[in-house]
Amino acid sequence: MSQTILKNTIEDLELLRSKVPLVHNITNYVVMNNTANALLAVGASPIMAHAIEEVEEMVTICSATVINIGTLSEPWIQSMEKAAKKAVSLGKPLVLDPVGAGASNIRNAAIRRILDAGNPTIVRGNASEILSTLSSSGKTKGVDATDSSESAVETGKSLSKVTGGVVVISGATDYILKGTDMAQISNGDALMTKVTGLGCTASALCGAFAAVQTDQLRAATSAMAVMGIAGEMAKSKTSSPGSFQVAFLDALYELNADTIKQRLNAK
Amino acid sequence: MSQTILKNTIEDLELLRSKVPLVHNITNYVVMNNTANALLAVGASPIMAHAIEEVEEMVTICSATVINIGTLSEPWIQSMEKAAKKAVSLGKPLVLDPVGAGASNIRNAAIRRILDAGNPTIVRGNASEILSTLSSSGKTKGVDATDSSESAVETGKSLSKVTGGVVVISGATDYILKGTDMAQISNGDALMTKVTGLGCTASALCGAFAAVQTDQLRAATSAMAVMGIAGEMAKSKTSSPGSFQVAFLDALYELNADTIKQRLNAK
Amino acid sequence: MSQTILKNTIEDLELLRSKVPLVHNITNYVVMNNTANALLAVGASPIMAHAIEEVEEMVTICSATVINIGTLSEPWIQSMEKAAKKAVSLGKPLVLDPVGAGASNIRNAAIRRILDAGNPTIVRGNASEILSTLSSSGKTKGVDATDSSESAVETGKSLSKVTGGVVVISGATDYILKGTDMAQISNGDALMTKVTGLGCTASALCGAFAAVQTDQLRAATSAMAVMGIAGEMAKSKTSSPGSFQVAFLDALYELNADTIKQRLNAK
Repeated sequence: MSQTILKNTIEDLELLRSKVPLVHNITNYVVMNNTANALLAVGASPIMAHAIEEVEEMVTICSATVINIGTLSEPWIQSMEKAAKKAVSLGKPLVLDPVGAGASNIRNAAIRRILDAGNPTIVRGNASEILSTLSSSGKTKGVDATDSSESAVETGKSLSKVTGGVVVISGATDYILKGTDMAQISNGDALMTKVTGLGCTASALCGAFAAVQTDQLRAATSAMAVMGIAGEMAKSKTSSPGSFQVAFLDALYELNADTIKQRLNAK
Repeated sequence: MSQTILKNTIEDLELLRSKVPLVHNITNYVVMNNTANALLAVGASPIMAHAIEEVEEMVTICSATVINIGTLSEPWIQSMEKAAKKAVSLGKPLVLDPVGAGASNIRNAAIRRILDAGNPTIVRGNASEILSTLSSSGKTKGVDATDSSESAVETGKSLSKVTGGVVVISGATDYILKGTDMAQISNGDALMTKVTGLGCTASALCGAFAAVQTDQLRAATSAMAVMGIAGEMAKSKTSSPGSFQVAFLDALYELNADTIKQRLNAK
Repeated sequence: MSQTILKNTIEDLELLRSKVPLVHNITNYVVMNNTANALLAVGASPIMAHAIEEVEEMVTICSATVINIGTLSEPWIQSMEKAAKKAVSLGKPLVLDPVGAGASNIRNAAIRRILDAGNPTIVRGNASEILSTLSSSGKTKGVDATDSSESAVETGKSLSKVTGGVVVISGATDYILKGTDMAQISNGDALMTKVTGLGCTASALCGAFAAVQTDQLRAATSAMAVMGIAGEMAKSKTSSPGSFQVAFLDALYELNADTIKQRLNAK
């Protein structure tokens, strides 16, 4: 399977760079600049727009929509619901990043409302967020609050059943699954956890790849492979987080078939 | 004319750095950090403030106001209208950056409302945005939706007639025009399009120069010259967008009469 | 006293890095990314959350709350009041950064409302902001609008009497005082004023240290020492503001007992 992922990642990145898809983001204040820059660096074209009056138009002109609840408030949740509904009605890729799921009631409620508005084609979070997202969906009971990789995979499978889409569990190893299918990416570096918003960037990249690759499991796998490889490339330049953030954007721009071949660690 | 632009740019930059003008920005979430840093780096002093309760006070204490509709919503449009009206009533420079003009109805409506509230002394955008701004002004009909440089100049002239002010069309060559006067700056680098918000930075710099140079056509020309030259200086340090964003801020801080003399490509 | 500050700073930084405290920030749009990255780099864990529905939960799960009024508006002020009240009721550290105090009526009103909701354990600002904060508190009359260090210290003492907490006056020398106790840190570099939001970062670091060190005067002193030393370390790498911003984050991550010993200039 590793050879398939290798071939797919290279092809999908080429596809992305040739199509330069417009990716619509309703995301948090903390990461907007870096997310937009990451999308540009990898080869996509970002639009950041949250006003309820325009989200449907933005979903319509874009090839994918990414919803991130990092710094939400009620007006933004309403825009997220409207965007999700529109994306699903148009059959466009919809990515949900449930940042901080479980940390507050409004986050859990927002997740439920967004899931009710439209099932995301991809949900990406860490183990804890995926667990809380499943819990918030209201479609399950008695979820054990464990964050181990093993149980996160089972949780991810349950969430995939609820949404009918792809679930990505980020970590030292990323698990990308849909139904019974699953891929694993073991690239990346621990320094990525010392820079804010790289999880958000991963979700945005899922959107960018999903915009050009209809097989959403494959798209999300390619996105996570690119994230991890860019992280390793950045780490080869610096061991401190300020310059890492900069080097990471450079790496997204620089990475190509050769660097993917050299570094990909997938199964 | 190139010699005049050279002399003016050098003088205006010195003036800016000696006066350290306060520049008020109502701008988008994506670029706020970089815009503030660019204003500091070039020698100005930024204030970012959008609350409707305070925009009139901020316009009053600042030497120029820059309105950027990148991530707008209804409450922000109301603040923009109020700020525009106040700036015009006080005879202060007012810059409008119509980000994403034409992409949604609320953007077009916002542009019309801001133009109705007060004519900007400078409007800066790319060809497509300038076209949509003219269209949104409601003062024209049947504008052809072509983005070529040639027609963008004619569109810019029409918009200049509507506002009575300067219009800047950004591109590989920047056209800065007012009525029948026009300057051209051909500095810069294609990598600038791979970093989010450098157009927004250009508009903020127009505000900074307009704050110290009453001849607004000259002010905008100096701003675009400085932008392009800083872009070339940054490109001489790096060919990737993450480090380019950083090098660009460094260049704004470092550029001086010598670098302007070496690099300016104007007519 | 310098030896005590040296020992305390080293101990407090070790404590912070071992405890990795959750620090809740209601801060401005301009600096959110850098503030979150600075907290991560120094060894804390940031949460940025402003929705009125969740601020009480965030105060509860975090070890300190930092309120920064840089880009405020009425809904945010209400969240700030609620968060301040909750922090005080739980006996948790509360930091107030009165950005732009005195620049508009809404800022002064916001400061008064936040002080009324709950006395901050630490207020950090420049001389002018501390003066305006005292003025806004409504607990004084006839404050002279002078920004000299000398009078700023007296003003700080008066504000400390009003809040019963620590007051930090940032400048070439930082004065950290509570009642009649006072420490001074003379580290840092003038280039820090050419990067937006380093004052905001200082306040966030006050929160991070206050989260692990119950002696709030000591916590604020350690935070300002770390700020100034990181600034000097960054300056040793670059003399331009774009790369300085990056190098500053690297320095927060890299600094240790040795660099503190080499550079601390305190009394």
